[in-house]
Amino acid sequence: MKIQPLYDRVLIQRVPSEEKTSTGIIIPDTAKEKPLEGIVRATGKGKPGDDGKPVALQVKEGDKVLFGKYSGTDVTINGEEHLILREEEILAVITD
Amino acid sequence: MKIQPLYDRVLIQRVPSEEKTSTGIIIPDTAKEKPLEGIVRATGKGKPGDDGKPVALQVKEGDKVLFGKYSGTDVTINGEEHLILREEEILAVITD
Amino acid sequence: MKIQPLYDRVLIQRVPSEEKTSTGIIIPDTAKEKPLEGIVRATGKGKPGDDGKPVALQVKEGDKVLFGKYSGTDVTINGEEHLILREEEILAVITD
Amino acid sequence: MKIQPLYDRVLIQRVPSEEKTSTGIIIPDTAKEKPLEGIVRATGKGKPGDDGKPVALQVKEGDKVLFGKYSGTDVTINGEEHLILREEEILAVITD
Amino acid sequence: MKIQPLYDRVLIQRVPSEEKTSTGIIIPDTAKEKPLEGIVRATGKGKPGDDGKPVALQVKEGDKVLFGKYSGTDVTINGEEHLILREEEILAVITD
Amino acid sequence: MKIQPLYDRVLIQRVPSEEKTSTGIIIPDTAKEKPLEGIVRATGKGKPGDDGKPVALQVKEGDKVLFGKYSGTDVTINGEEHLILREEEILAVITD
Amino acid sequence: MKIQPLYDRVLIQRVPSEEKTSTGIIIPDTAKEKPLEGIVRATGKGKPGDDGKPVALQVKEGDKVLFGKYSGTDVTINGEEHLILREEEILAVITD
Repeated sequence: MKIQPLYDRVLIQRVPSEEKTSTGIIIPDTAKEKPLEGIVRATGKGKPGDDGKPVALQVKEGDKVLFGKYSGTDVTINGEEHLILREEEILAVITD
Repeated sequence: MKIQPLYDRVLIQRVPSEEKTSTGIIIPDTAKEKPLEGIVRATGKGKPGDDGKPVALQVKEGDKVLFGKYSGTDVTINGEEHLILREEEILAVITD
Repeated sequence: MKIQPLYDRVLIQRVPSEEKTSTGIIIPDTAKEKPLEGIVRATGKGKPGDDGKPVALQVKEGDKVLFGKYSGTDVTINGEEHLILREEEILAVITD
Repeated sequence: MKIQPLYDRVLIQRVPSEEKTSTGIIIPDTAKEKPLEGIVRATGKGKPGDDGKPVALQVKEGDKVLFGKYSGTDVTINGEEHLILREEEILAVITD
Repeated sequence: MKIQPLYDRVLIQRVPSEEKTSTGIIIPDTAKEKPLEGIVRATGKGKPGDDGKPVALQVKEGDKVLFGKYSGTDVTINGEEHLILREEEILAVITD
Repeated sequence: MKIQPLYDRVLIQRVPSEEKTSTGIIIPDTAKEKPLEGIVRATGKGKPGDDGKPVALQVKEGDKVLFGKYSGTDVTINGEEHLILREEEILAVITD
Repeated sequence: MKIQPLYDRVLIQRVPSEEKTSTGIIIPDTAKEKPLEGIVRATGKGKPGDDGKPVALQVKEGDKVLFGKYSGTDVTINGEEHLILREEEILAVITD
């Protein structure tokens, strides 16, 4: 089974808190209980631009991303925590 | 009798909760009582773009889709639960 | 006397509840007392598009349509219940 | 003295309630005390479109129109009740 | 000293209530204490249109205008009551 | 040290109340305690227009301007009261 | 590890309050406890313009910037306080 987000939406698998701490990134304001890093698992084709063609997203499958803790809609797939949000709600891509 | 949605609206038949569980998708936040998967039964022709021509939708009849639990307007057709919502409110297409 | 709606507005004659039940469509959430089907009796010429010309509506006189129960402004013409709403507020066209 | 509305605004003279009843149009929801029909007495030149030229209005001087009861700003001219509203707020033109 | 409004703003000198009554225009809803007619004393050059050039205003210095009583920002210049508002907030021009 | 505002923002040095009174401009509604005139000290390059190039501002360094008392963000530079606001929030330029 | 902001977002490292005071800039309204200057550490590629290409940002890595105290999302990287905000929320660049 595959989840294909629509337009500018992105499917993200949450990264458990342990891994997050190891990267040295902490969101300080009382956000301890919810991971805020995740891995992009699927992306939409983009919203139609002025010429009607979809504008490609900047994130791609496999990207590790940062997002705000109230973003998106939670979805559990085969026991793993995911969420679907708009690319607009992704703050940054984390690279090594 | 046929329901033809207008513009970017989509007619969706709700999938009963039993089938949903079998696909492994669960929406965790207290949404147990309302199914959130559905099958697209009819689509509008799209909203007019800048050139006045309708921009075709990305979903099509038969697609299995995910949508938020407060989306759209409920309509019962021949005893089956349906809803009419904007394609914008569809989060993702589920493929096997 | 004739009512000619302006721009993207549509004049709709409400269909009494009895006829509605016979089509098999029921809006379940406590909307029993107000019919939500209607027949389009007149349409505006459309809103001006980017080129200044009106963009034609998708519904036409005689169409049977579905609309939300809080849509539009009620107008009684010769004792018959009508309402004027924007085409945007029409959910779908019902065909047989 | 003449009132020349600006842009997409329209000057409307209210039609007294007696005449309104004779046309057979009644706005049912507790709007009895305020007439909702009127005669267009002056129109603006229209709002500038994308090319900077004003987009002409669809109503013209002399048109009998329907409008919502909370629309526009009341102005009394020589003892007659008028109001100035945007053409957008006019629901329909009444023809005989 | 001169006040040069920016973009689509207009400097208006309030007309005292006495002169207003003589023109036969009365704003009925409890607006007795504040004049609502005024004379345009200065206009901005207009907001930039799509081509970057300012779109000229429709009112000009010397025009007698009608405006809503909560519009704009009051400014007293040499003891005379003025206000600065957007041309958008001017309802109509009064001509004789 | 220099403050270079971004896009359509403007750095304004407040003019003390004494000088304001001498120009004959008074903002009557209980705004006595905060000066509302100021001198433009730096301007942004403008917001990008449709062609991507910044649209130049209408105010320039040295202009004496009027602005609403709740506009902008206060910044004290070397003991002098300044504020940073959008050009949009400037009501007018004062010339002699 | 590197944080690459998306679109028009910017990663800023907060400047400790001591350094801020030395530049002579103070935000007077009860903002003492949070620094409001920062150094740009990374920028997004810009939001897509009308032609689909990203519009480059006006700030660049290394710029010292001023921003409002409620802007952005706090992120701690290797013990240093950072925040991610939209370039839109940056008030000005500080140069020497």
